[in-house]
Amino acid sequence: MIHSEPFTARDSAPFLTLFQQHTPLVHCLTNEVVQSFTANTLLALGASPAMVVEAEEAAEFSAIANALLINVGTLTQTRSEAMLAAIEAANAQQRPWVLDPVAVGALRFRTAFCRELLSLSPAAIRGNASEILALTQASAVGRGVDSLHSSDAAREAAQTLAQSCGAIVAVTGEVDYVTDGQRMLAVPGGDPLMTRVVGTGCALSAVVAAFCALPADRLQAVASACQVVSEAGKRAADAAAGPGSFIPHFLDALYQCQRQEAK
Amino acid sequence: MIHSEPFTARDSAPFLTLFQQHTPLVHCLTNEVVQSFTANTLLALGASPAMVVEAEEAAEFSAIANALLINVGTLTQTRSEAMLAAIEAANAQQRPWVLDPVAVGALRFRTAFCRELLSLSPAAIRGNASEILALTQASAVGRGVDSLHSSDAAREAAQTLAQSCGAIVAVTGEVDYVTDGQRMLAVPGGDPLMTRVVGTGCALSAVVAAFCALPADRLQAVASACQVVSEAGKRAADAAAGPGSFIPHFLDALYQCQRQEAK
Amino acid sequence: MIHSEPFTARDSAPFLTLFQQHTPLVHCLTNEVVQSFTANTLLALGASPAMVVEAEEAAEFSAIANALLINVGTLTQTRSEAMLAAIEAANAQQRPWVLDPVAVGALRFRTAFCRELLSLSPAAIRGNASEILALTQASAVGRGVDSLHSSDAAREAAQTLAQSCGAIVAVTGEVDYVTDGQRMLAVPGGDPLMTRVVGTGCALSAVVAAFCALPADRLQAVASACQVVSEAGKRAADAAAGPGSFIPHFLDALYQCQRQEAK
Repeated sequence: MIHSEPFTARDSAPFLTLFQQHTPLVHCLTNEVVQSFTANTLLALGASPAMVVEAEEAAEFSAIANALLINVGTLTQTRSEAMLAAIEAANAQQRPWVLDPVAVGALRFRTAFCRELLSLSPAAIRGNASEILALTQASAVGRGVDSLHSSDAAREAAQTLAQSCGAIVAVTGEVDYVTDGQRMLAVPGGDPLMTRVVGTGCALSAVVAAFCALPADRLQAVASACQVVSEAGKRAADAAAGPGSFIPHFLDALYQCQRQEAK
Repeated sequence: MIHSEPFTARDSAPFLTLFQQHTPLVHCLTNEVVQSFTANTLLALGASPAMVVEAEEAAEFSAIANALLINVGTLTQTRSEAMLAAIEAANAQQRPWVLDPVAVGALRFRTAFCRELLSLSPAAIRGNASEILALTQASAVGRGVDSLHSSDAAREAAQTLAQSCGAIVAVTGEVDYVTDGQRMLAVPGGDPLMTRVVGTGCALSAVVAAFCALPADRLQAVASACQVVSEAGKRAADAAAGPGSFIPHFLDALYQCQRQEAK
Repeated sequence: MIHSEPFTARDSAPFLTLFQQHTPLVHCLTNEVVQSFTANTLLALGASPAMVVEAEEAAEFSAIANALLINVGTLTQTRSEAMLAAIEAANAQQRPWVLDPVAVGALRFRTAFCRELLSLSPAAIRGNASEILALTQASAVGRGVDSLHSSDAAREAAQTLAQSCGAIVAVTGEVDYVTDGQRMLAVPGGDPLMTRVVGTGCALSAVVAAFCALPADRLQAVASACQVVSEAGKRAADAAAGPGSFIPHFLDALYQCQRQEAK
């Protein structure tokens, strides 16, 4: 397995500056539970979110947006059709799209759907260890949305997956590992309190999509997304009395880092 | 173009008192992203929100509720049918309904749908400058949910729209302009931080619907809704460290103004 | 009518300890408006939420989860089919499922659906007074999601309902009454501010489902869920300046009581 290189705030700084200049418009086809938090996360960073869900409109909009997020958390037959239409439109316009394979491996419909999506050239895939393992192994079974594996255990799977489908793969946990199949960057940080708030991983995937829209090295862009969110999570956890106050602190931290960068 | 008259907290005060006495029940057929924030905004003000989405039930409920909100942010074929059934029931019972034409002009399905709705006697329409322009001009194209125009630029379009469909039209931005086609009220205030939180405009539209339920001059009632939300937004922005802490401060400010009025 | 016995923090303490050991995985088929708040409530308490909504996957997942929540707030035909599939799977695996009959009585589709569900052996039912009355009487009519009756008035209906369908019935309000048809526990507390935040009742129903997963006396387990949420609500209301700041305080209070128990 390849050795991982640390990727820190110093490394992400130029990407945050670039992000600030581009303020990507991100089309989010995500799950019912996290839409508001995902939108607020992107807005706090200075990006523009939009959720357009009807199949025909989703395709129209993906051709306008700078990036597309596909999150299968509350997948339905209807939504899966909108997702395919949006991906096709994004690919036709060479806009990057990112897959968040929530709970893949544990449930049949989404597992088949996610494996189908791997052949449609995702720019990046962001998941926990169980999810990344499930995308490469037939045997992995998750416990719903929680990871049963450490991110370390999925490093090899991430590398294999990146090589086979050409995407940047981010397997997130205590340490986030980001790989293009050749190099592997390790982003430390975050805080366990982030697992007590719904949608932190889903929101990170939206930020990954936004960073994929930048005209920059994509491996480092994805690692920058992880680093920015991880650091905001750490700051918010330090300031919060629990998961309730974590949420406003987290969005404020993203907003402040974005404004700091803008100076 | 008609001259605009300032509309301030002093003007909205009697409407807020009336609101407090009536505590309107508002049926919200709104988008997936903002439902919770919309409900919390109405509750903070002392109104009662309800989201009833199945077509038959939506029609039943619109005949019970005091006002109906139609927001097309995440429009689907199915939801559009529920909306039409709800509007028909509201009109039959002479209950006011309000249109929030999110991202109209940028996407075909919702653009056709919103234009169809203009003939169904909305009591009010609340949108940003791009949206109000798109409802009157064939050429306007938005960038998703963000406005590319200042609210000032859409003043003339608002006036034309109000005259053609008989609704009060509120075009909101740095200054909110509210017109019935004859008079135009200007509501100052708000704060740019409101654009970094998802759903502030959508929530305002729900408040507009609630104020339309009052037995009072509708032009001033709609301007009062804009004034109350704008002032709560300003107070919250002054107290907040960013968009995360803005949210609780905003709801608290609405709650406090409502309680102050009740004394 | 049976006499009610007080049920306090002292009584719920051993159940909270047990909860901490089991960290139930709760499958929530709930309404569109409250999904995020419901998930965050369960996470703050140390439980794991999951929302899996496609009918086939919902059935698969209910066989994995420790408990199932059915909330009809934004019921649709499609969602009702997923709910029936999930209930069938939960019953086949002897996993408890809980009904939150939002606005039952006021609207025909959900009223017929909820009455159908009563024959499918719910472990518990949690509603306000109007909802519990509507499940037992043909004449009751609610005003949407708000209760027109005090919880006291519905005590007899709760008892009748518990006896007829074999569920623990919790009718919540100023005082929460929890009955198995033979005994009735009374949980004091909470705060009126909780009615100014959307989804506090819905989130309580999810917590009730989680407590039903414990290997313990179910009457007391459901009363414990009510007691824990009620106490967190009281603490949050004492600390909050309004319904906006109530939300983070409420989640933090649940998190802190859970951590206190874990020591």
